[in-house]
Amino acid sequence: MPVRVDVRTSANLLGRVLTALAGPLAVLAVVALLYREPVAPFVVPAAGSLAAGVGLSRLERDDPGPREAFLLVALAWLSIALVGAVPFLVAGVGTLADPVNAVFESMSGITTTGATVVGSFEIHARSILLWRSVLQWLGGLGILVLAVGVLSGLSVSGAQLMETETQNQNVTKLTPRIARTARLLGGIYAGLTGLLVLVLLVLRLVGLAPNMTLYNAVAHALTTVSTAGFSPEAASIGAFSPAVQWVVIVFMLVGATNFVLIYFVLQGDSSRLRESEEFKFYIGVVAFAAVIVAGVLALDGQFATTEETVRHALFNVVSIITTTGYATVDFDTWSTGARHVLFLGMFMGGMAGSTTCSIKTVRWLVVAKTFRRDLFTAIHPTAVVPVRISGGAVDEGTIRDSYVFILASIVLFAALTVFVVADAARAGVEIGEFAAMGAAASTFLNIGPAFGFAGPYGSYEGFPVTTKLVMTVMMWIGRIEIVPVLVLFTPSFWRS
Amino acid sequence: MPVRVDVRTSANLLGRVLTALAGPLAVLAVVALLYREPVAPFVVPAAGSLAAGVGLSRLERDDPGPREAFLLVALAWLSIALVGAVPFLVAGVGTLADPVNAVFESMSGITTTGATVVGSFEIHARSILLWRSVLQWLGGLGILVLAVGVLSGLSVSGAQLMETETQNQNVTKLTPRIARTARLLGGIYAGLTGLLVLVLLVLRLVGLAPNMTLYNAVAHALTTVSTAGFSPEAASIGAFSPAVQWVVIVFMLVGATNFVLIYFVLQGDSSRLRESEEFKFYIGVVAFAAVIVAGVLALDGQFATTEETVRHALFNVVSIITTTGYATVDFDTWSTGARHVLFLGMFMGGMAGSTTCSIKTVRWLVVAKTFRRDLFTAIHPTAVVPVRISGGAVDEGTIRDSYVFILASIVLFAALTVFVVADAARAGVEIGEFAAMGAAASTFLNIGPAFGFAGPYGSYEGFPVTTKLVMTVMMWIGRIEIVPVLVLFTPSFWRS
Ligand SMILES: [K+]
Ligand SMILES: [K+]
Repeated sequence: MPVRVDVRTSANLLGRVLTALAGPLAVLAVVALLYREPVAPFVVPAAGSLAAGVGLSRLERDDPGPREAFLLVALAWLSIALVGAVPFLVAGVGTLADPVNAVFESMSGITTTGATVVGSFEIHARSILLWRSVLQWLGGLGILVLAVGVLSGLSVSGAQLMETETQNQNVTKLTPRIARTARLLGGIYAGLTGLLVLVLLVLRLVGLAPNMTLYNAVAHALTTVSTAGFSPEAASIGAFSPAVQWVVIVFMLVGATNFVLIYFVLQGDSSRLRESEEFKFYIGVVAFAAVIVAGVLALDGQFATTEETVRHALFNVVSIITTTGYATVDFDTWSTGARHVLFLGMFMGGMAGSTTCSIKTVRWLVVAKTFRRDLFTAIHPTAVVPVRISGGAVDEGTIRDSYVFILASIVLFAALTVFVVADAARAGVEIGEFAAMGAAASTFLNIGPAFGFAGPYGSYEGFPVTTKLVMTVMMWIGRIEIVPVLVLFTPSFWRS
Repeated sequence: MPVRVDVRTSANLLGRVLTALAGPLAVLAVVALLYREPVAPFVVPAAGSLAAGVGLSRLERDDPGPREAFLLVALAWLSIALVGAVPFLVAGVGTLADPVNAVFESMSGITTTGATVVGSFEIHARSILLWRSVLQWLGGLGILVLAVGVLSGLSVSGAQLMETETQNQNVTKLTPRIARTARLLGGIYAGLTGLLVLVLLVLRLVGLAPNMTLYNAVAHALTTVSTAGFSPEAASIGAFSPAVQWVVIVFMLVGATNFVLIYFVLQGDSSRLRESEEFKFYIGVVAFAAVIVAGVLALDGQFATTEETVRHALFNVVSIITTTGYATVDFDTWSTGARHVLFLGMFMGGMAGSTTCSIKTVRWLVVAKTFRRDLFTAIHPTAVVPVRISGGAVDEGTIRDSYVFILASIVLFAALTVFVVADAARAGVEIGEFAAMGAAASTFLNIGPAFGFAGPYGSYEGFPVTTKLVMTVMMWIGRIEIVPVLVLFTPSFWRS
């Protein structure tokens, strides 16, 4: 391990990321051509990204240590957010023509958050709206690679948690296996996305989804499997038929499932999935929340039929807990009980080893099981009892990391809420406490929609510029699990 | 240690507590006589408590282990809440004549919460209103004894945290020292209460507190030093002059300071207080929150003068952070920024070894310092760095317990909010998300007032009966720091 952080190594690896980013931008240029829309918004950043990437790749590099990996991860997400904002700026249409808005939207994309500053959707080029979806799909891919690859062996990773669940498969241990696993999970990810495009088009063919064009199928497949949530439709998935909504529910749930378990299912071994305590816990939480929301909606007489009540309750609960952030209706108009459960659901997240954001169910499961163990040791102080998940013992370091991560998330969320309300008071922007908490949780935990004017059918455009900048930073911090950014601000990171 | 829980030992010790409880009830009977008010509300429970206490004390007892101590603590707070409700029921006046309300009010008293179901104060006898204050003073005393005594050596205690701060003084280690320390802190507690009575009466003598009668001085001294917050005045401390409000600010701050440090100050050694990192942290948090609230109030032009802005901001921030729960104005009418900071302040609490409730500053300090250490070890994985507070290393078990306690508190708070909003939906009670969260935090963390109809000048009477019952249980769980109640619901507690 080098004695001081080797910036050149991180920069070299960042160069490869930026070089690769030119690819999707070039694809979007072709899409723009096909739609007879301006290509400059994509050609400009593609050229820039390629030039910067090739330049950086020429730097000498060594084997990266933890510090170089943290620096790479932090810089990669930040750089893509900046490059990703260029198409919006060059296009220069509507709210996205503003630099702060453009960077907010791009960061919201690559972090798979889905919080939008778009005011009206119809004024934007289709290629621009598709770029939002592509950014999110790339963000989901990046997280999968991060989970198995770069962060493996670093103390902050979801990798140990993923391993806990996959029981000594050690899929992440050896470098060749890391690359192989990353390719494998990436393949599953791409395959699921393709499958969803197909399913949506079949629904249209059989007459169950009249407005599901190829464009819409692709745009929504990209942001469903990545549990990311951008939609080119102002009404989100509410623009489509009930059949589409049910299909999207299933694919959001799949996108929030541990991809290693999905791999085993594809290998014909579904026992691991069925026996996974985390999977049962995750499905149980979704069901529990959906039952409460459906109950409240039924009490309120919000919908005419039971199917509608169940569908809208389930869809929006799944959308929030899987951190996707789609909506089928404006749930901001629902009553307290329903909205509050959605708010708390933001802190859950899907399984480790999935594309989801937020805290993730395995951490909550670890903490809950540890608490039960602690109640036992409180009365049997000399007993030594391991915490077990799906039969395997969870090591105490992983338990500690789960506590630290959850609490750090909650504290940073709370700090963000203070900034949001204080900055709103300063700028004279009217916002309620719950709306402020919702927007803070939804951006930092990378969900997307919140309540009030930042509701599912609203926009974050109304926040003060300073709040939007801070939220942009918090989306970045939240998506790469806090530590890779925060360590950069400790003096010892830069010292030898 | 006995192989199964020795219920008789716990019952014997509970008997002593109930016997002692007859004393304050007898005092209140005398007060009622002096005021020519009915004595039955106090004579009836005094007789019952004495009879039950003497009966239970006859049971054989052994040395209590952890299980017996947990059982005793849980039963003591529950029994006093039940006995303490009898005066309200026998008096049978207003909302307190209802059994659920009476038990809620009594539990709110003994847990030093201060959430009230009283609708109008003027209809109640002065002795009845004073009983609320006495219950809170006893509750504060109970917590001091608990902190140094009963919970010492049990894994859930604030005792290690207190020790951390007092650096190997081991005030809590040996049984004779426990008794001595408990008496010492109890003496300081009583002395501070007497001092406040005197100061308030002097203010009246010099014309700075026209309406500060002896009754009011005693009633408020009892609930200030105990950081408990019941007031016989509908306007709480808002009924008194600015001079009284400033004095109460100081005594709330003192009541929330580690009593061991106060002991050293009284011994002429104030260096421990000045060098205590927890004390600086606690004062820093109060100042930070007060500055934000004062800033928001100033922006809003809420008050005419700077003195008023500063006083009301500081008073209500101190009241919430020290978990007292007094108010000088109806802060529920303040704007989002101010109310939100008060809400978050509920999760802080004062120092360990004080009478305050909630999470307590030392736990937050431990967690914050550990996080900084973890950022260091994330980039230096092989480094071994202890977490230090006021120079002494905090052991890893205490760090873990801090994480567990904070997270358990937050999760139980969140669970209570779900119950509150769902039950309100069921019962057709209108409540907003923020008001529901405020009421949940304020009861479970033993603060007192919340927002909406349960605001500082409001009442919890409007909640559904089921919600009030659940809140009563949650005040109980929160005050004795969760574990002593929850272990009772684990099967292994009752097995040998
Ligand atoms: K999202
Ligand atoms: K209180």
